[in-house]
Amino acid sequence: MNKDSTIRINTIPGGAAAAEGFVAGGVECGVRGSGRRDLGLLFSERECSSAAVFTRNVVKGAPLEVTREAVEAGGVRAVVVNSGIANAATGRKGLEDAYAMQALAAEALGIEVPKLAVASTGVIGEHLPMSRISSGIEAAAAELGRDGAGFAEAILTTDTRTKEVAVQVEVGGTTVTVGGTAKGSGMIHPNLGTMLAFLTTDAAVEKACLQETLSKATDRTFNRVTVDGDTSPSDVAILLANGAAGNERLTLNSPDYPAFAEAVEKVARELAKEIARDGEGATRLVEVVVEGTRDEAAAAALAKSVVGSNLVKAAVFGEDANWGRVLTAMGYSRVSFDPDGVELWFGLVKVFGGGAPVEHEEAEANAALASGEVRITARLGEGEASAVAWGCDLTYEYVRINGSYRT
Amino acid sequence: MNKDSTIRINTIPGGAAAAEGFVAGGVECGVRGSGRRDLGLLFSERECSSAAVFTRNVVKGAPLEVTREAVEAGGVRAVVVNSGIANAATGRKGLEDAYAMQALAAEALGIEVPKLAVASTGVIGEHLPMSRISSGIEAAAAELGRDGAGFAEAILTTDTRTKEVAVQVEVGGTTVTVGGTAKGSGMIHPNLGTMLAFLTTDAAVEKACLQETLSKATDRTFNRVTVDGDTSPSDVAILLANGAAGNERLTLNSPDYPAFAEAVEKVARELAKEIARDGEGATRLVEVVVEGTRDEAAAAALAKSVVGSNLVKAAVFGEDANWGRVLTAMGYSRVSFDPDGVELWFGLVKVFGGGAPVEHEEAEANAALASGEVRITARLGEGEASAVAWGCDLTYEYVRINGSYRT
Repeated sequence: MNKDSTIRINTIPGGAAAAEGFVAGGVECGVRGSGRRDLGLLFSERECSSAAVFTRNVVKGAPLEVTREAVEAGGVRAVVVNSGIANAATGRKGLEDAYAMQALAAEALGIEVPKLAVASTGVIGEHLPMSRISSGIEAAAAELGRDGAGFAEAILTTDTRTKEVAVQVEVGGTTVTVGGTAKGSGMIHPNLGTMLAFLTTDAAVEKACLQETLSKATDRTFNRVTVDGDTSPSDVAILLANGAAGNERLTLNSPDYPAFAEAVEKVARELAKEIARDGEGATRLVEVVVEGTRDEAAAAALAKSVVGSNLVKAAVFGEDANWGRVLTAMGYSRVSFDPDGVELWFGLVKVFGGGAPVEHEEAEANAALASGEVRITARLGEGEASAVAWGCDLTYEYVRINGSYRT
Repeated sequence: MNKDSTIRINTIPGGAAAAEGFVAGGVECGVRGSGRRDLGLLFSERECSSAAVFTRNVVKGAPLEVTREAVEAGGVRAVVVNSGIANAATGRKGLEDAYAMQALAAEALGIEVPKLAVASTGVIGEHLPMSRISSGIEAAAAELGRDGAGFAEAILTTDTRTKEVAVQVEVGGTTVTVGGTAKGSGMIHPNLGTMLAFLTTDAAVEKACLQETLSKATDRTFNRVTVDGDTSPSDVAILLANGAAGNERLTLNSPDYPAFAEAVEKVARELAKEIARDGEGATRLVEVVVEGTRDEAAAAALAKSVVGSNLVKAAVFGEDANWGRVLTAMGYSRVSFDPDGVELWFGLVKVFGGGAPVEHEEAEANAALASGEVRITARLGEGEASAVAWGCDLTYEYVRINGSYRT
């Protein structure tokens, strides 16, 4: 992705609270009812510029309306989020509850109401237990700190582990940190932002520049992940920048803007891969690389079609190098291409080229599917563009989880 | 669908060989290697007019090229089909094999080569064992008869049962028969014609009228089925009309054309439902009805989005009336609508309306998912159009079948 080899990006521990001036906390308040944390707060001790991207699903969770208003007003510096109930398809009462969450968190943090973003994830069509949410917000505010682990845990639903990434990069002589915490697992086929992703940076960044950075990074990372083809009504990605690093405020024209953008994209990409790896029931991360298309959009559409195919996903689970399914999924992607010009690889094993099967050891191709990270590559001869998409295998466990999610 | 209540359509036994003048046969020739029939012939003893619809997948099986030529030349009156190997992504040799199949069958039946359509279904990317195909064609030609059961069996892959439908309808004072035989099961998300569907009629029908009839019926039936969202490269539906019934040749303007069209659509619809019901691993037929949209295309897109959602499918398997997933799938269908104007039912139990959950007995809603045929209804308040789509649940067995299809 990054063609400027002078950009050095170092990974550091932590997530959304890794950047200077950010604190976070997460507690159990009884929404999930399973003894796990379910309410989180993320807070910048300084004022922020903020950006967000939202689901394109026509059905939108009530919190997204509140958050969209807040981001449009500018200067969001805190996020309150619960798991267990998505507060989507909940009518007027749901919207009132989302505004109440915003007001309660603003009061607990001592900031103005419009500076709070709100997010909820979980079951659709149920109302939030507001008294529990209220005491959860108070408890979370009381335990804010630089360790974001509790926050990362509080936003999970069927995820099996937390997802935190943080990096540092030099911008105008100043080291800035970009961190992020996300959740994923099911109903993952984002169309602008995945389920929930909270990115923060202590860089000073002009608002329009911040939005452009997040939108572009999202398009190449969260929007390239699919677990099950279902786009959630709750998807949102938020990027907060509080300037604590002391750099000169970044704009799209700043000489070091590419370094900052690459750092944000790297955090988003690593979180996106973690979401795919932890897809519901998944045993493997599947990375599909499409090269040699006329433009990136075509490569992305082809890669997403392959990584989203139930048949490809089941074949990966079964360690069956059934490349016909890969070619078939490319064929129904709505991208026009010449099948005779396609070459296909499972790992390093070439299986198809020149319009016909390529002789190979079946066992070697199957073995390429047996590791925790599977790479499928398609090379077309139509141009220089490329794209990557991420997904996971389709397993018995996916069916079990989703046949009994609410019970 | 049919608003003319004077049209009487009677179901009779049989399938593609039910109409007067058609014979069929199916034998085992060793392509599948599982002791099951794998080569079928369908033959009209009289000349025919013919129509076909093909997959829109960019990747197309070699037989489809041969069949397209034959249908364009006009007068296809026989079909040779094998299961076990799809002869897709097989390069020049695959195309030569498909032409050879056509020539061998024409010789065995004593008709001109261009009057033969060819179809293959099964594993993608393997070459046909042509000596077995050749002896299979001879054997099948020797056992042609009015009983289409062997033919229906020979075209199956992972299907668990044969799919045959036949009806009779009166056209201009003459009783005509329309029959069809299909296969489905996996890689079913047709975009023009399902895997394989062979329809026949002893009506005399003008060619353009026949094509229009098949295209329209396909759009409302086979194209409304999804098992797994994967559009196969081998999909084809063929309709042969041999005129043996002795009716006056039908055109689009014939007074009784609607009766004929409705008979064809009924055969196609019943076959489509059979394909959904026998989807890989399926335990239930899922019928999604969308009403009250501005046009039929919107209703169809909404219905297909719901019936194609892995999360809805898994919820049906788990008998979990998780209606939030239904609303969510409508939301990402790319159809624009007002979620607050939507009403949702599982069976007869209303679960959502006026933008908010509707109080209902959870157990009753779950019970509506426990039968062999599940109906989910969405009613919008935006117009008078409606559409139905069919699918099946997502089960452990689907994963098992597709994790080990080739092994």
